[in-house]
Amino acid sequence: MITTDILIIGAGPTGLFAVFEAGLLKMKCHLIDALPQTGGQLTELYPKKPIFDIPGFPSINAGELVNNLMEQIKQFQPGFTLGETAQTLTKLEDGTFEVITNKGTVHHAKAVAIAGGLGTFEPRKPAIENIADYEEKGVEYFIKEPEHFRNKKVVIAGGGDSALDWSIFLAEIASEVTLIHRRNEFRGALDSVEKVQALKDQGKIKMMTPAEVTGIKGEGKLSAITIEKDGETFDLETDYFIPLFGLTPKLGDLANWGLEIQKNAIVVNNALDYQTNIPGVYAIGDINTYPGKLKLILCGFHEATLMCQSVYNMLNPGKKYVLKYTTVSGVDGFDGSRKEAEKSVVKKID
Amino acid sequence: MITTDILIIGAGPTGLFAVFEAGLLKMKCHLIDALPQTGGQLTELYPKKPIFDIPGFPSINAGELVNNLMEQIKQFQPGFTLGETAQTLTKLEDGTFEVITNKGTVHHAKAVAIAGGLGTFEPRKPAIENIADYEEKGVEYFIKEPEHFRNKKVVIAGGGDSALDWSIFLAEIASEVTLIHRRNEFRGALDSVEKVQALKDQGKIKMMTPAEVTGIKGEGKLSAITIEKDGETFDLETDYFIPLFGLTPKLGDLANWGLEIQKNAIVVNNALDYQTNIPGVYAIGDINTYPGKLKLILCGFHEATLMCQSVYNMLNPGKKYVLKYTTVSGVDGFDGSRKEAEKSVVKKID
Repeated sequence: MITTDILIIGAGPTGLFAVFEAGLLKMKCHLIDALPQTGGQLTELYPKKPIFDIPGFPSINAGELVNNLMEQIKQFQPGFTLGETAQTLTKLEDGTFEVITNKGTVHHAKAVAIAGGLGTFEPRKPAIENIADYEEKGVEYFIKEPEHFRNKKVVIAGGGDSALDWSIFLAEIASEVTLIHRRNEFRGALDSVEKVQALKDQGKIKMMTPAEVTGIKGEGKLSAITIEKDGETFDLETDYFIPLFGLTPKLGDLANWGLEIQKNAIVVNNALDYQTNIPGVYAIGDINTYPGKLKLILCGFHEATLMCQSVYNMLNPGKKYVLKYTTVSGVDGFDGSRKEAEKSVVKKID
Repeated sequence: MITTDILIIGAGPTGLFAVFEAGLLKMKCHLIDALPQTGGQLTELYPKKPIFDIPGFPSINAGELVNNLMEQIKQFQPGFTLGETAQTLTKLEDGTFEVITNKGTVHHAKAVAIAGGLGTFEPRKPAIENIADYEEKGVEYFIKEPEHFRNKKVVIAGGGDSALDWSIFLAEIASEVTLIHRRNEFRGALDSVEKVQALKDQGKIKMMTPAEVTGIKGEGKLSAITIEKDGETFDLETDYFIPLFGLTPKLGDLANWGLEIQKNAIVVNNALDYQTNIPGVYAIGDINTYPGKLKLILCGFHEATLMCQSVYNMLNPGKKYVLKYTTVSGVDGFDGSRKEAEKSVVKKID
């Protein structure tokens, strides 16, 4: 069982920054995310694209912002349960919470902050009848650990940036990479399209276009896929089939937790602390709604900060909190590290 | 007369970022600040000190954050009235506003956002009876334009970072710099103290410690100051006397504008748009108060953003606004510039 002060559901920018603000208040955080890595949409959907409206950054690539946030919160040693989705939320008799994931991981926390963005990113799946039988048995929708694919045969399907980028990446690791797309044209960064062209010319990526995967075969685990190309149907032996057809955000199990939901978002008290209708459960960032709500990362940062203060007050009733500025007080990490401004000296000039 | 969409009172980080968010909504901004430069406290009080709680920056020097914000808003060509304080606010019959500064500059705007931080920074003045007679006639509390001091005799008084840093800076410009402090010890960055020591050793800064300026002389403008040192009193000829004894924030004239004030802060509607009790007048950043308020820069960024949306809705009644993400839509400056993410290509691989 994982125990923490604030359990954060969603490891996008808002959830990550909450770790920092909680840390300043000496509270520990643990994050759950359906994706295999942190950063949410920023990492999964547009890691190489610039964002122009993060205050203080005239331009910053989404992936770089996530890296910066990970660096900023490192001192506060957050825990992570990645590649799992929070399935049930139970308020225990003592007012604390138990959250269990789809893989049975049990989390116990004093407060819960839902920072789920647009919801859980679920992969769009190809319409192959028996595909569910092979999931995690050769069919993968996410690449969690590239090393799993070393010296294996891999088939990637898709025509966008994910399909292009993972083909490029796995070309150096897998024994064979085949990229299948139902059109001849790919849509992605020019750079990525050109790299795939070059790898194809070098024989490091096999292309099959226009073509479609229509069947999966194998005893207990995938061993081959069925492909339709130019009106013909044939089988191709492979160890892995990775369809990368994009992600759809779904509220998912959260919708059954008794939270007040409006248009796929969780209603919160924006006049105070972004708490939901369940005391002790907060919703911050794109997943919440209130009058005047804007789904912007910078708003999530503010909401995360006020949420942390509210949790602090809840856990320390009657304790008067005096805001300390990091420039003046420094930042003491849970790892024993300390960041602080250079001290002034008092020194004679003679 | 200066005409704009949103008149922002205070050019600290919150006020500056408001220019960006207003710009995304095609609204122009003009900023008034009592200080001679932008950045508010960050520039005036701790430009070289790191801040650790700006989201996405594990550490950033205050001065650098201001530079970044200035760069970020450049596209939207904000106007500035610096070195003046907003003195009167009048709501005109058509619902727009007129704001006049202490120097008589008239501003006309559709909405007013007070982003005044802790208030107007007023210099702590030395207790010299006739000092007011010489203000801006040789006595300066701020250095607005260093070039004014070229080849002039300058006396700086004070024992902190400002006194040290300006002595260093003016040593290269003025014909003579004398630094007077009532103690032998200075309190400041080690680096600054050491630089002053070196400049003193080179004869580029004259030191007078422990000493005090007790009088000012001159016909119509300052020509000499009276100094007490080691029990003796004597005059020193100088063109300028610059006492740098620190700044005190004061709400000042704002307090008479009919705004609801609580503990030196302006009460706003945090449940919606950070509007004050005067419709069309907003207060954002450290100067406002509401339940759960935290005086943090990152909260000011959020408040500025919601304020801009509210002004937009007020100026465009009934117009449905669809939030555009800068990554997707790019940013079009008023100067004709455009920032945008690199476009995806649709390209055949063969």
